[in-house]
Formats: sequence, structure tokens, C-alpha cells
Amino acid sequence: MAEAVFDPPALEPRTLRIFPTGGLGEVGRNMTVYEIDGKILIVDCGVLFPEPDQLGVDLILPDFGPIRNRLDDVIGIVLTHGHEDHIGAVPYLLKLRGDIPLIGSGLTLALVEAKLKEHRIKPYTLQVKEGDVETLGPFTLEFIAVNHSIPDALAVAVTTWAGVVLHTGDFKMDQLPLDGRLTDLRAFSRLGENGVDLFLPDSTNADVPGFTPIEREIGPVLANVIANAPRRVVVASFSSHVHRVQQVMDAAAKNGRRVALLGRSMVRNMGIAAELGYLKVPDGVLIDYRKAADLSDNKIVYMSTGSQGEPMAVLARMANLDHQIELGPGDTVILASSLIPGNENSVYRVIDGLTKLGATVVHKGNAKVHVSGHASAGELLYCYNILKPTFVMPVHGEYRHLDASAKLARQTGIPDENTILASNGTVVDLHEGVARVVGQLDIGYVYVDGSSVGEITDADLKDRRILGEEGFISVIVVVEAASGRIVAGPEIHARGFAEDDAVFDAVKPKIAAALREAAGNGVRDNHALTQLVRRTVGRWVNTSYRRRPMIVPLVIEA
Amino acid sequence: MAEAVFDPPALEPRTLRIFPTGGLGEVGRNMTVYEIDGKILIVDCGVLFPEPDQLGVDLILPDFGPIRNRLDDVIGIVLTHGHEDHIGAVPYLLKLRGDIPLIGSGLTLALVEAKLKEHRIKPYTLQVKEGDVETLGPFTLEFIAVNHSIPDALAVAVTTWAGVVLHTGDFKMDQLPLDGRLTDLRAFSRLGENGVDLFLPDSTNADVPGFTPIEREIGPVLANVIANAPRRVVVASFSSHVHRVQQVMDAAAKNGRRVALLGRSMVRNMGIAAELGYLKVPDGVLIDYRKAADLSDNKIVYMSTGSQGEPMAVLARMANLDHQIELGPGDTVILASSLIPGNENSVYRVIDGLTKLGATVVHKGNAKVHVSGHASAGELLYCYNILKPTFVMPVHGEYRHLDASAKLARQTGIPDENTILASNGTVVDLHEGVARVVGQLDIGYVYVDGSSVGEITDADLKDRRILGEEGFISVIVVVEAASGRIVAGPEIHARGFAEDDAVFDAVKPKIAAALREAAGNGVRDNHALTQLVRRTVGRWVNTSYRRRPMIVPLVIEA
Repeated sequence: MAEAVFDPPALEPRTLRIFPTGGLGEVGRNMTVYEIDGKILIVDCGVLFPEPDQLGVDLILPDFGPIRNRLDDVIGIVLTHGHEDHIGAVPYLLKLRGDIPLIGSGLTLALVEAKLKEHRIKPYTLQVKEGDVETLGPFTLEFIAVNHSIPDALAVAVTTWAGVVLHTGDFKMDQLPLDGRLTDLRAFSRLGENGVDLFLPDSTNADVPGFTPIEREIGPVLANVIANAPRRVVVASFSSHVHRVQQVMDAAAKNGRRVALLGRSMVRNMGIAAELGYLKVPDGVLIDYRKAADLSDNKIVYMSTGSQGEPMAVLARMANLDHQIELGPGDTVILASSLIPGNENSVYRVIDGLTKLGATVVHKGNAKVHVSGHASAGELLYCYNILKPTFVMPVHGEYRHLDASAKLARQTGIPDENTILASNGTVVDLHEGVARVVGQLDIGYVYVDGSSVGEITDADLKDRRILGEEGFISVIVVVEAASGRIVAGPEIHARGFAEDDAVFDAVKPKIAAALREAAGNGVRDNHALTQLVRRTVGRWVNTSYRRRPMIVPLVIEA
Repeated sequence: MAEAVFDPPALEPRTLRIFPTGGLGEVGRNMTVYEIDGKILIVDCGVLFPEPDQLGVDLILPDFGPIRNRLDDVIGIVLTHGHEDHIGAVPYLLKLRGDIPLIGSGLTLALVEAKLKEHRIKPYTLQVKEGDVETLGPFTLEFIAVNHSIPDALAVAVTTWAGVVLHTGDFKMDQLPLDGRLTDLRAFSRLGENGVDLFLPDSTNADVPGFTPIEREIGPVLANVIANAPRRVVVASFSSHVHRVQQVMDAAAKNGRRVALLGRSMVRNMGIAAELGYLKVPDGVLIDYRKAADLSDNKIVYMSTGSQGEPMAVLARMANLDHQIELGPGDTVILASSLIPGNENSVYRVIDGLTKLGATVVHKGNAKVHVSGHASAGELLYCYNILKPTFVMPVHGEYRHLDASAKLARQTGIPDENTILASNGTVVDLHEGVARVVGQLDIGYVYVDGSSVGEITDADLKDRRILGEEGFISVIVVVEAASGRIVAGPEIHARGFAEDDAVFDAVKPKIAAALREAAGNGVRDNHALTQLVRRTVGRWVNTSYRRRPMIVPLVIEA
């Protein structure tokens, strides 16, 4: 159900315009555009991972269309934290204009810089921390500590002539965080007392009742599994989950085990986190995985990527015996991660493979080895009550999440008409503390496939689906231009259609007859002849096989 | 990880041979072959639904290969219950030999007959009920009531010269079943006391700790949602779940609502269930959906298909506003079903669509509106302890389920070496009460696509995956046979590749040059020229786009 598109009016002075170009109605490619007095601020610029029916797509970017001709007016990109769905599209935006400053915390900037290095881009950066206030043109930005499943996450309060907007980025409210860095509810209180005109909260878990369990509940479970494991232990997790890795390292150290990191992103991210002091590696616990094989089996923990069953990641390769570390009976694998919807089949395939090798597999389904990084309904109620914002526009989530967040807002007393259920491209203007929907832009998917960005369209994906599900039949006939007489063919080749090519002997005479008849009637138009071939073959295959492969006819004049 | 294949020895007299040709290491296409003294008995013959990477496949059948030349020796097919994964492949087996008798309970046979009617097959049937004992050649079959998510399910005890085998079919052990029909543990006890040599238990939920909640817990929840719904109610469920439909009808009647059935399979199955007395329709509660529109909104409950998000089913069409019943604010939708792994994306898409229309969506994630139909670990322990079988071979499930079931068996005292962790094709011989693995057959997937059965191979599916993910580039060149001179082309067309066809102008001269050079060197072999074209285009596209579409070259001599 696409939104009805309508253009917003020209932007009035002292009015703040806000529109998301990704991240609403989906989990990923978060990006929100703020504009006032001719200047643009961007908050987050992430990627979305494709669904299984978006065949062959590597990544999906936010739609830069609405700002493509306004890049010179962009004064900065605030990055709330270092997850891919908030920073992953930065290289693609910087390819359009390389000197847009990136604003974020130490860890966030370090992660985005490592990513940009792979794209050979050296960005301009402005490092900030909680409590900092920066003024960029018409925007005054205050950064506030929030707790999430990666360290050093920040919310940002954007103050302009038009009012105060609080944008949380991803967050939860673990009240006993491992690093002691709480979501700063005192700052939320102060902002609330002074008046927050518009609140953009992370709503990913708004439909989950109650409270997200605290990270500290995971540690003892991990420690217990590691303490009782008879042989090797492999822990798979997101490669940016510094606190989970910390818990594993601490448990390993306590049990006289060493830790080897596996997987390029795990090695890279934990290197950065350790260097910047976010990961505190216990003395002597780290070991290169190539040397780990020399240790006895009960002295090692491997920390690996692949918790979502990604086929090329370490864990899936171990499950397929396609990795130099060959697991067997007595070994223990812990999947210390959530199961992102859509990945179930891949993850269960990996669990089955590991079980078949004899390994014991511990996962969310049979032990408490993961908690979410997002605030559940109960936490969001705290937020709404502490802030008492005038207007609310839930962000970061599928429609049901945004809807659940809006319902929570209403339950705390925010009037219906002040609750904005937006989608990508919804344009909201804030003027003298009043927020109003003034337009709806047409926001598309921007697909990355190999080195192509934005070349693939939804029509191409539809073609791919047909090709994938049905295969194709290509039919080539060479005709004499003047007479229409067949000089070669019909040659018929099929792929993904499955039947032996010999079956086409049945349709070749039909094609030849149809073309002869057309030639006899004086038809010489190539397009008409091509369509004739398509129809003849299509009808035959549909009747004979009750299937609809793509028919690719070609009539060549020679 | 395919099993190492090895042939079983010739079957000795008075030895029972058992092998599954589907259903182990997967959830679906259950079929087990029993053979003794030259006669074959089949237990169940179901379909497996394809995974998303098995593109375009409609159904997957058990591999009939091992019995294809033995069909005349088959004396019957026992069908334990009427679910698709146990009866769905019967039409395909009966197409090979139409007069194999089907043996099952009243509801099971009625459902399979309705299905066979669509294939224009009228089967020979033998209706049985719990307590019945039938002798078919060397097999004596005793049927035992079991409780499952469809009425009238039966376990079967197969007694031969070789010993006693108990095969549960799917079951759970609801101790307060809605229809009062318990899994008959007294019969299990009696069998156990007399000695069960080999036990084949449904292990689908063996990795779920504890006990499957009872169906009666669902009724009040459904009733409560229906009682408090302000407007229309839609309940989506599996179309064979008679008890769930019964609960909905009862709740509707109690609240002065009428029930309309939506979806072809729902109408068909409930018609059969009501006719046979398994569904007790409260007086005057049923109404044709075409007349339901005349009722006021708080007087109707629609009972529909589509609980797994199937795109063509009623519920998905409602979510897309592509159904004559248009839902809106105040309407309530209940998904009273499990979420089968792999269907998450489709189901969440439907939930989002319905939420966007303003409907309240109640599902497993936010209310207790479904329980599983399979015995959890706790129930299986009861079974193992009551039966105390000598040998165990867990069936019906992925490897991790079978493995979990075997572990439970060992915990109750069944020795390791008497626990057979089999896969499809594992051949077990039972002789004088001793079961032993004696062979491993090579069991393949049999894909149904349109009217093709078994024509599609794994190689075709690989082609489809490449086509689906990358598209193809077809290159046609017409050359003069004698000289090798190009007389037409290269014509290049691509589908699913995404870039404008004009990009191929860059590679056409390369192809022409390569062919000219080959012609100059006297190369005339069509295969060599075709490969040359493939290589030229493949290299270019890989360098320019970092992608690997299928290259389909064709050199025509004219």
C-alpha cells in the first residue's frame, strides 16, 4: 500500500522540515533529513538488508533523491551509533559529495572510518560525546548518552527557531548496564521540563510487552555454559556487540580459557573497540586463531561471526565442514544473538549441521544467551512520561512497531492528533512548536548489486523472480529480410526450465508454420514476428506444462 | 552432509526391513516403507513444502525410487492422519499404481478422497478406527487412538514374524482434549508390557522443553477476544484444524455472532468434518459469506485460510485490500496458528498490512491463541517410560529434533546402541527383536512444478538461483559457415541484469574482434566459438560490474 504522494509547499522561514528517506515501515536504512533556513542536517544513513524475494540484491540504500540536488546545503550527518542500519550507506552518500562532515561519538566514527577506508574515502569528522553541544548553522545539537547493543550510542536533541526535536537513535534502558553508561533520563527530564516539541523514538520493540531483560542476566549463563563445556567452545554473535564479546572474554579468562577471534568484521571491530578502550581485554586472553589449535580443547573459546546463518560466514562454514576448525562431539556452540525474522531457515540449517557433527548447540530457543538492544513497551512508557513531548513521530520499525509506539504515546496522554504515524517520505513541518504533515514524497528502493548502485529497478527484480521460479526459453529464428523465409532455426534453448531440450522438437514446426503463414500474409515487421513467436511458444508451454517460463524470442534478419 | 550410501543385503526371511523415503531431516513428506517376506506396507505418503531457495517448486514428494519396481508387492498404505505432510503425495503414488488400498480412519480417508477426486482418482479404501486389528499378508496392524491437531489420528502397531513396531504418526498427549479422545496410553502400556521391539515416535517437538499446553487454554482466549471485539472478527487458522474451528464457532454462538467460512480448503475440509460429525456446528451459526455482509459488523466472525501469510490466500488478499471483505478500524484479526519457520516475512507482511488498515491483530506473539500439535520433551519421556521399547528410531523432524528425541530415549534408560539416528534412506532390519542398520539408500528430492513431476533436478534449481539472483545476458551471432564471417549480430539482450541494453555497445566490438581473430586462425568449431563468446562477455561483465549473470551465447551458422 503506497502512500498517496503530494508535494509539500515551499518551506517558510523559521520552519523546520523533517522527512525520513528510509527506516519507516522497515527495519534498516535509517535516514532522516532536517531542513531549516536553507540548511540541511541528516541524522543517520544506514543500509537495509534485502528480503529473500529481492533476489541478488546486496544492500538497499535510503533514497537520496529528495536531497540529490541539495547536497551543497548539507552541513553535516549525525550518526547516532555504529550499526550498519545507521552508518552503512554513508560511503554511498559521500560518493556524491565527499566533504560532508560526519558527527558522532568516538566508537561510531572509528567504525564508519574503517568502513570508508574500504571505499577509499577519508571523511571530515567532528567527534562528540554525551553532554556536548554543537552549533552547525541554524541547528544546535545536544548529544545525550543512550544505552544500546553497541557502546557509545547517542541521542540528539535538535534545537532550531522552530522548536526542540529529540531523536533517540536506537536505544534501550538497561538499568544496570555493563559499562555503567545509562540512557540519560536526567537529560530527558531536563529537556522535557523545558519542552520537547517533537519526539522521534526508536520503536523497533514497541510491540513487545514489558521490559527488555538486562545484559547482566546473560553473563552468568554464558559463563556457566563455558565453565561446563567439556571441549572447545564457539560463541557466535554480531560482530559489533562489544559487550557480549566482553562477557565472553571475562568468562573465558575466569575459566582459564583463551579467546580467538574469527571472521573479518569481528577482528576489525574488536580491534577498534579494544584500541579505543571500549573492550577491556583481560591480560593474555587473546590468541591468534592459528595458534589456538595448539591449545588443548578445554582451553579455547572461539568468538565468531555468522550468528544469522549467513552462508559465507565462519559458523555456516563450520557447520558444513568447510572451515579449518572442524567441530565434533563434545564441542559446544553458543548462538549469542537474536534471530532476525527471515533468517530462520538459514540459522536452523546451521544448527542442524552443527548438531549432526555432534556439537551441543546453545541458542535463544533453549537458553538465555541474548537480549534485545531495543526498548520494549514498558521502557517507552517511561520515556513518554518523562519527556511529555507535544508531538510524537515514532521511527525505526515496521508499521506495526510504529503503530504500537503511537498507541503507547496516546496511553500516556499525548492527543491522537499529535501522534504522527509517518512512512518514508512523509514531510512534517514544525513551526512555533506545532508539527504538521505537509507532504508525502515518493520514496523508492535503491538497490546495490555488485558495483551497480540504483541501476536495478523493481521491474528487474520482477524479471529475476520469474527467471528464478520458472527459468526461460529462448527462441532464435534467422529470416531472410526480403522474403521472410526462415534461413536458420528455430533454435530453442532453455535454462531453469528443467525439461530436456528435445521436448522443443514438438513446438518447432508450430513456430515455423506460424512464421510461414505470416510471411505469406506479407508480414515483415520484426516486432510483429517476434510477438508471434512468443505467443506460439507461450501457449504451447502453458498447455503442455502448466508453467509460465520467460519466453525470449528473437527474429534476426540476415 | 549426505550420508555415505551403501547397499543393504538381500532381505532374509522372517526379517522386517524398514526405511523412510522422506520425513527424516526435514518436516514434511513423511513416508516409511515396511517389507517382510516379499510384501510391502507403506506408512504415510506426504508432501514437503519447498524452502525459499527451491525457486518455483510447488511441492516436494518422497522419493518413490526404491519401490518403483516393487509396486505390485505393495499391499497397502496406512495413513495415520489427514495432514498434507502425511497424505499429500498419495495422488502421485496412486498415479503409478491406482489400486493400492488406502487404510485409515474415517476423517483421514474422507480428506484423502477429496484430494484424489481433484486428481480424478477413486481409491480402494479400508476404513479403520482405534482398537481395530487388521491382517494384511504378513502384517498384523493394530490401530491406536492418538491426539493431534486434527481429529481421528491413529498410531499403528505393526506386528510381523520379526517383532512389534510401534509407529506413532504425529501426536501429542493433551490430557483434556476437546473431543475427549486421548492418546491411548493404556494401549501403549499393554503393548509395552508385551514388548515393543522398535518404536518410531514423532519427534517434531522433542527439543521443546516441558509439555505442550492444552487446547482448552486457547478457547477462553479466543472467546474473550471475540466477546470484546467491537466490529468484525476474522480468525485465520490451518484449514484442517477442526478443533480450533470448533472453538471459534462455539465462541461465536455464545456471543450472538454467526460464522462464515472463507477459502476453498477451509470450506471443503469443514464440510467434510461436519458431515462426518467431527465438527459440531451450533444451530444456525453458519452463514454463507456472501450473505454475511448484510449482518451488522458485531454479528459476524469470518473463519479463513492464510495464517502462514500465503500470498494467494484470503488473509493476505485482505491485507492488500484485494478481497471483497475490506477490513478497517475496529475490526479484529486473530492468527490462531503456529508460525512455521521460513514464513516469518510473509506473515509479518500480512500483519503490517492489516495493522495499516486499522485492524487489531492478535497473534501468537501477543496472546495465547495457538498451541502446537506435537508432543514436547516431557510428553515423549512419558511415552518412552510407558513403552520401554527395546529399540528407538525417532522420525518426523529435522536432525536436531531427531537427536533431541534420541537423547530423551537414552535418559529413560534405552542404551545408546539401541537408539537409531536415521536419515531418509537408512535401512533398518528387525530380526528376532533385534534392529540393525544394514544399508543407506540414496534418496533424492522429487520436485513438482506445474504438471511436471520429477523433471526438475537440483542442477535446474541451481540455474534458477543464478538466473534469479543475477539474470542473464544472451548473445547471438550469425556467421557464414564456410568463412566464419559475421553476417548478423552480435545481438545482445539481457533480462534481470538491470543495466540498459546500450551498455552492451561496449562489448560488441570485443566479441566481433574475438570471432574475427578465431576465423582468421581457421577456427570453425561451433562449440569453440560459443565458448569464446561466453568468455569474452563473462570477463567484461565481471570486470565492469563485479557480477556474474548467466551468459547464454549462441553462434548460428547461416
